[in-house]
Amino acid sequence: MIKVGILGATGYAGIETVRLIVSHPGAELVRVVSQSFVGKKISEVYPNLKGICDIECSALDIDDIAKSCDVVFTALPHGASKTVIPALFEKGLKIIDLSGDFRYNDPKVYEKWYGEPHSAPEILKESVYGLCELHRDEIKKHRLIGNPGCYTTCSILALAPLVASKSVDNTSLIADAKSGVTGAGRSAVLPNLYCEVNESLKAYKVATHRHTSEIEQELSLLAGENIMLSFTPHLIPMQRGILATCYADLKKPMTTAEAVGLYKEYYKGEEFVRVYDAGTLPEIKHVAGSNYAAIGVVVDERLNRAVVVSCIDNLVKGAAGQAVQNMNLICGLDEGEGLRAAGMYL
Amino acid sequence: MIKVGILGATGYAGIETVRLIVSHPGAELVRVVSQSFVGKKISEVYPNLKGICDIECSALDIDDIAKSCDVVFTALPHGASKTVIPALFEKGLKIIDLSGDFRYNDPKVYEKWYGEPHSAPEILKESVYGLCELHRDEIKKHRLIGNPGCYTTCSILALAPLVASKSVDNTSLIADAKSGVTGAGRSAVLPNLYCEVNESLKAYKVATHRHTSEIEQELSLLAGENIMLSFTPHLIPMQRGILATCYADLKKPMTTAEAVGLYKEYYKGEEFVRVYDAGTLPEIKHVAGSNYAAIGVVVDERLNRAVVVSCIDNLVKGAAGQAVQNMNLICGLDEGEGLRAAGMYL
Amino acid sequence: MIKVGILGATGYAGIETVRLIVSHPGAELVRVVSQSFVGKKISEVYPNLKGICDIECSALDIDDIAKSCDVVFTALPHGASKTVIPALFEKGLKIIDLSGDFRYNDPKVYEKWYGEPHSAPEILKESVYGLCELHRDEIKKHRLIGNPGCYTTCSILALAPLVASKSVDNTSLIADAKSGVTGAGRSAVLPNLYCEVNESLKAYKVATHRHTSEIEQELSLLAGENIMLSFTPHLIPMQRGILATCYADLKKPMTTAEAVGLYKEYYKGEEFVRVYDAGTLPEIKHVAGSNYAAIGVVVDERLNRAVVVSCIDNLVKGAAGQAVQNMNLICGLDEGEGLRAAGMYL
Amino acid sequence: MIKVGILGATGYAGIETVRLIVSHPGAELVRVVSQSFVGKKISEVYPNLKGICDIECSALDIDDIAKSCDVVFTALPHGASKTVIPALFEKGLKIIDLSGDFRYNDPKVYEKWYGEPHSAPEILKESVYGLCELHRDEIKKHRLIGNPGCYTTCSILALAPLVASKSVDNTSLIADAKSGVTGAGRSAVLPNLYCEVNESLKAYKVATHRHTSEIEQELSLLAGENIMLSFTPHLIPMQRGILATCYADLKKPMTTAEAVGLYKEYYKGEEFVRVYDAGTLPEIKHVAGSNYAAIGVVVDERLNRAVVVSCIDNLVKGAAGQAVQNMNLICGLDEGEGLRAAGMYL
Repeated sequence: MIKVGILGATGYAGIETVRLIVSHPGAELVRVVSQSFVGKKISEVYPNLKGICDIECSALDIDDIAKSCDVVFTALPHGASKTVIPALFEKGLKIIDLSGDFRYNDPKVYEKWYGEPHSAPEILKESVYGLCELHRDEIKKHRLIGNPGCYTTCSILALAPLVASKSVDNTSLIADAKSGVTGAGRSAVLPNLYCEVNESLKAYKVATHRHTSEIEQELSLLAGENIMLSFTPHLIPMQRGILATCYADLKKPMTTAEAVGLYKEYYKGEEFVRVYDAGTLPEIKHVAGSNYAAIGVVVDERLNRAVVVSCIDNLVKGAAGQAVQNMNLICGLDEGEGLRAAGMYL
Repeated sequence: MIKVGILGATGYAGIETVRLIVSHPGAELVRVVSQSFVGKKISEVYPNLKGICDIECSALDIDDIAKSCDVVFTALPHGASKTVIPALFEKGLKIIDLSGDFRYNDPKVYEKWYGEPHSAPEILKESVYGLCELHRDEIKKHRLIGNPGCYTTCSILALAPLVASKSVDNTSLIADAKSGVTGAGRSAVLPNLYCEVNESLKAYKVATHRHTSEIEQELSLLAGENIMLSFTPHLIPMQRGILATCYADLKKPMTTAEAVGLYKEYYKGEEFVRVYDAGTLPEIKHVAGSNYAAIGVVVDERLNRAVVVSCIDNLVKGAAGQAVQNMNLICGLDEGEGLRAAGMYL
Repeated sequence: MIKVGILGATGYAGIETVRLIVSHPGAELVRVVSQSFVGKKISEVYPNLKGICDIECSALDIDDIAKSCDVVFTALPHGASKTVIPALFEKGLKIIDLSGDFRYNDPKVYEKWYGEPHSAPEILKESVYGLCELHRDEIKKHRLIGNPGCYTTCSILALAPLVASKSVDNTSLIADAKSGVTGAGRSAVLPNLYCEVNESLKAYKVATHRHTSEIEQELSLLAGENIMLSFTPHLIPMQRGILATCYADLKKPMTTAEAVGLYKEYYKGEEFVRVYDAGTLPEIKHVAGSNYAAIGVVVDERLNRAVVVSCIDNLVKGAAGQAVQNMNLICGLDEGEGLRAAGMYL
Repeated sequence: MIKVGILGATGYAGIETVRLIVSHPGAELVRVVSQSFVGKKISEVYPNLKGICDIECSALDIDDIAKSCDVVFTALPHGASKTVIPALFEKGLKIIDLSGDFRYNDPKVYEKWYGEPHSAPEILKESVYGLCELHRDEIKKHRLIGNPGCYTTCSILALAPLVASKSVDNTSLIADAKSGVTGAGRSAVLPNLYCEVNESLKAYKVATHRHTSEIEQELSLLAGENIMLSFTPHLIPMQRGILATCYADLKKPMTTAEAVGLYKEYYKGEEFVRVYDAGTLPEIKHVAGSNYAAIGVVVDERLNRAVVVSCIDNLVKGAAGQAVQNMNLICGLDEGEGLRAAGMYL
């Protein structure tokens, strides 16, 4: 049994990691760190876990974590993780970081989008971007994983086959993404209030959201050239899920059937990516609560443009689920272990 | 492996049964009957099941069911089940019926509330009311289970300890119950439309809802005398879950702590009933997606009245989950097998 | 034109008062006080008001208010209003207070439920409880109105005809009330977050909610004897509206038709109370966005118990709308002026 | 007083027209036609109108309509309007049609997108496209108005200033639009059920939605050349509102401030279009329940691309409100009469 610690366990990404680890047949949850709830049982904070996981929240103690855990998930606010991770890394632990701090190949890109120099560029070099479908082999060789952002997982999976196959004009890419409110985390701030979100809809951080840089890094790698794209996040009155509608101008004509064929080939053998048949498109409720990504493609032949619709659960494939998938990879387990539950249609 | 057939599999209670059986370690889903979707894969109707359960929907064929299945779940509209079940029963199958047809000890009660004579009173005698916590031993001896209604499970569990202990005035009982919209099923009728339900709230079938008769049957059994109560169902703009707020006048003064003690004692050892500590109350999100019932009690000492708050997921403990719990009981499996997933707080 | 000032204008009750005053033909909004947004236009805080009301938020200045306003609405947090109102009252202003501070006939009742002595018992004597349908004549004679709570308005209107007519056992009364989330105000606290409220449901402050005391005060007045009742508030995942389901044991048998007749007679001529015909019941969407209360009655003849379903919009008839109705009364305007918009079914 | 008849009054667009006409100071509602509810009061179908509008629904009688009405709103299902309108037109009535039948300048475009020849091409010639901000003068000269679609109003208003000013590459246009569920109408069909829509999100009719053709017609007129664009509709779990996120490649560099300036100039004097200051963007709750359109612009200088966010209430500015605005125009009233209510932030 792999011994697992979760830091920042009472945030939404953290508690989703708890939920998945608790039912994982190859892992055992041994430490749950939450500064706000030290001394409380996790099941007092989240009573859905009563009798299922009654472990007590503790304060951060690097030595104790090092002694008791094999793998650590860090679901800390941006900034907190960068001070904690070097210390954990030194202790030889396997680390899956859910913050943005270890997702970049180039610390300059980090600096540009986060507005400050990276605090641990040496350790950044030891990390790998944990989008399992794109970097599986590299991930297996590392012990520090920069677990991808939710928007980025959804958008990259949507555009990768077109970009990798050099089918599209790389200057035309647009990802118009819509997210449920769990993506905003558990902060008690005005814009997250029920009455501010419900029965409304908004775009935010247009042309400036940090996830843009992750998407560009990964698509550029696939294209072999520098790519910039439009990424527009929107907040939707629902809890879980991201749907990204992506647009790309085709270099030469292609039918919807051909595009679907390209996607099915690209994701052949990928357990957690479902490419939809031509004429059908995914909806959030096809994946909510699960680790599956669902992708449908339409070619608008009038315009010679591909429209790709991609859905994930932002808390699972977009955070905790992919983190567990990464744990499985770096620990030599079956990649899909503990992640095969069907989505909740209802 | 127990071979399972599900009739009426594409309704909401049916598909929830599919979801639970598919991940049940001791059961195998071999037949899925849905008159509306014959020839379609269940995963075409509910794409969350893609790659997880791609079994094809078939038409009803009693002989085929009898040959291929050990246990049958019938999630048919009221009326349909009563013609099908006698035929299945004759074949020697184990049957768990999710309709109201086999929930009564007395066919006259059925006739009074359903407005027509019971069509199979002989077979009704062979059935047992499948509220596992109250009739566990009887259930194990039967092979036709009248799986309880959602409102009734929630209300009976809430009031049973007070009634069984003769602590309350049995003429004072009230169950004010609030249900999510999945309880209305998948019928394409006006009152179930998004824009008719959302941002609204209503009471319906006040003083006439059929579930009243089930609650009265069971509480009367516990009391050893005939009980009638007020039961008021309400429709809430959410998907899953029932919360019942129940009121009962106490025969003699009792503190909240004493009442909680009474409940903890009554449900001692019950895996799927969580009695909350004094001062805390359950919420729907503590149980949604799970088979757990959660119950909190407050005594209003000014009035000498107990207020009991009880929560379940109407599709799980209120339908499919309890049906699987019954399957486990009548097949000699561990009662909680396949039912231990935590609720979805988010 | 009546000159109006609104204190605490950027909270939810405050901004609803702004919305109503802005379209009121007999009133002019001249001062908007909001400590958090001094110097900002109200339409920057609530952009739905752009071009409709661009008045600037100011800090509290009693002298300025006294000089510029005829009527002041105070929608301040509990506690703040009690220091401000004596000062405003001294200046001779007409005041409609939306807090709980001036709703009581007896300062001892206030002290019991609020846990501290009333700070201005002398001024409390000068106030009247502003439930227009019950105290219309008294209201007209006062210039300090304790505008009723949302739950209380809904519950009192539901039970008044039965209590006033001495038709019910006054020890049997129960109000099980369900409220939308605007009732919790605009505080950025964890329990008000979208993901904590959405797809869930809870009871809270069972047997201890302060509104209980208001309901008891008013029903006791109607009964001519001291009444205590069970009041249970619930939080529902929707924005606007309260539905109260009330229970009362009848002293002697009555049909639903007779009960409906009693209600129609009691509320005869009341523009803002709609009594439903027997066999029909109100829903939140019949009143949301409007100042109307809608009431339906069912007699459960098996139990000799009346079940009353009452709906209001908590922000309108439960707060800002009734406040404007009170302004109309104390300023000698047509009582319904500015309040006749239909509810938003959609 | 203008005498108004509304055909198809009990659908969602129809009843919103009723709501607006009932409070319109210059109009009187004299006929309400609803085939499904003949003989019922409109306030029995929509009880929010009790005591406000209790007019009885009648069957369609062209002669009666002609005698009693000055203006007719037709909110009939596509197809129904095309048989009724020629008859009404012959009678000399002023007609505002909310269907798609009279929105086209060229019957061939209609035929291409609707899959059948236009049934009344002669009368089509007499009609004008009723997007008030673009065709105000033409509208005043006509008495048959093809009231625009909801998606199209939102998308055209978003892109018009860029296209009309020849600032953008006309082959690069994309409108990614998100709509509330009232847009789907009141049909009792499976995809409109609460449990199918809630907590989910989907794109539909990608590259094939009929509103594409309306947007293209109007933008082509503004550009003086034939324009085709990508239009992608999405269904959002909320009731009212459309937000369109539009993308256009700029021909030459422009700052956000310059783009905002262009929009403010273009919509100068337009009462119902609010252009947001640079750095702020509209949200659905800024316009819900109102006739206002709200538009914000961001230039992504890295990509030389404009991103325009446009919000309307689909039932008001996208249907009934714009229809009333058209009525005001063709009847010589103040254009904004009856349409100046603030949106419902809550």
